[in-house]
Amino acid sequence: MRVLGVDPGSAVTGFGIVEGRRGNFRFVAAGVIRTNSIERAANRLRRIHEQLLAVIDAHVPDAISLERSFVAANVQSAFRIGEARAMAMLAAAERDLPLQEYPPNQVKLAVTAFGHADKSQVKYVVRRTLGLAAEYELADDAADALAIAICHLGRAGRPRPVDAVERPAHPARLRRR
Amino acid sequence: MRVLGVDPGSAVTGFGIVEGRRGNFRFVAAGVIRTNSIERAANRLRRIHEQLLAVIDAHVPDAISLERSFVAANVQSAFRIGEARAMAMLAAAERDLPLQEYPPNQVKLAVTAFGHADKSQVKYVVRRTLGLAAEYELADDAADALAIAICHLGRAGRPRPVDAVERPAHPARLRRR
Repeated sequence: MRVLGVDPGSAVTGFGIVEGRRGNFRFVAAGVIRTNSIERAANRLRRIHEQLLAVIDAHVPDAISLERSFVAANVQSAFRIGEARAMAMLAAAERDLPLQEYPPNQVKLAVTAFGHADKSQVKYVVRRTLGLAAEYELADDAADALAIAICHLGRAGRPRPVDAVERPAHPARLRRR
Repeated sequence: MRVLGVDPGSAVTGFGIVEGRRGNFRFVAAGVIRTNSIERAANRLRRIHEQLLAVIDAHVPDAISLERSFVAANVQSAFRIGEARAMAMLAAAERDLPLQEYPPNQVKLAVTAFGHADKSQVKYVVRRTLGLAAEYELADDAADALAIAICHLGRAGRPRPVDAVERPAHPARLRRR
């Protein structure tokens, strides 16, 4: 199964594609879509939308995994996050791909087993998990996107005890949010 | 000049097209795009996007006018508003149309000369301004969208005193927001 992880933002949107089978992860591609702050907001959204469709068409993922924060610094920033995120949602619907959303803590838990890991810890574990060569430059937002893809694969692919099937992955931790 | 006004929402998006020249307004079309709440959010956004493009292609406006709230009941609702609004922004960029955003109070001021007018007052004035026949059924969100279009036309077309050109339209009222 091939998953496209997306970390949406109006200035920088990270994307990362990972293939996973039974706990083995293979790196496919990663990068960032940067938009120019002198462009009007509508054109920045258009660029994010176009580039995400281009990534999907180039790498043909089976699903999209998206980080969904439940908090924002303020209402204005929530509007902007919603606008950027909508581009990934729209691209998923247009290519008829299932879309799953995960809160940031759950993404961090999935890769580092620590819900409050910082960006550099996430990046370190993502590099190690995917066996990325030291020479391979990985932008922070691309690393986050790969973690979001791994989060989805870990969830979908990891065998679970039979009695846990009906329950959420980390009930206590989820409730703590 | 022909303006498409849009009042975006994830459940109901209103649209209204008005043609204006020197303070004379002509009704062109209005309606609502309804999405089904049992659909996943991504598909609802796709429908809004597709329908807005269809409206643009059918009526060929010169500009898009959008209501931009600066407040939301909470962060979750700000995310959802941002997502729906992004569909109108994207459609504007895709059809290369100028997009102007107005806060709700300014829209109300433009049609009713009262920034805190309620929905029924806005609808009444919109119907009268556009000379809509009593038989013409107008949904609330379509009336709001027409008001948003009129707001843009009023701003662009209304002659202003020379000494007011450099100042915002209603400085005192704008500051009160």
